Amino acid sequence: MPVDDETFEKLRLELRRGSLVLAVLATLKVERYGYTLRGELADAGLAIDEGALYPMLRRLESQGLLTSEWREEEKRNKRFYRLSGAGAVLLETLAAEWRAINASLNRLL
Amino acid sequence: MPVDDETFEKLRLELRRGSLVLAVLATLKVERYGYTLRGELADAGLAIDEGALYPMLRRLESQGLLTSEWREEEKRNKRFYRLSGAGAVLLETLAAEWRAINASLNRLL
Repeated sequence: MPVDDETFEKLRLELRRGSLVLAVLATLKVERYGYTLRGELADAGLAIDEGALYPMLRRLESQGLLTSEWREEEKRNKRFYRLSGAGAVLLETLAAEWRAINASLNRLL
Repeated sequence: MPVDDETFEKLRLELRRGSLVLAVLATLKVERYGYTLRGELADAGLAIDEGALYPMLRRLESQGLLTSEWREEEKRNKRFYRLSGAGAVLLETLAAEWRAINASLNRLL
């Protein structure tokens, strides 16, 4: 039985999902608005759809990990996000967890 | 607003979920039954509950990535799992994806 594209895509997304949260938190140590955040993630090789990024930002903010603020820049209102104090603590813990998972996978692969 | 344990645990699980599939597929290049598979994952630092492992094995088998076979060993019937041909192809692709995600996260963290 060959593996269909949908199965692969599902597993690939599962593999990326957790990492994307970590990437977003790490990038938001410095304040950004959505468009530049997305560009920066894409430059790092972690492209993410707007339809996935904005709900994630709202979720992370509702969890207390990010703060956001509307501000005018270049005559346009933009919503700027940055890591909260609690988010910074969680980022360190998650990054340590990620390094541990990494070490484990390196042993197994 | 402090981050509650539930939020942290949710993000931690999200980070592990995709990696666990990769770890299970990698470990099953060699045939194993559930108990030894779980032990091996735990030894590698990726402990997983039985209640999570067995549904994952069934799902991976239904996706065509694993095959399984009941066999008697030490007078007990055990279900042995191993990577299918399609699973081996997918493992390589997922492992490459994981290395790419890794490189991206290393840049960002």
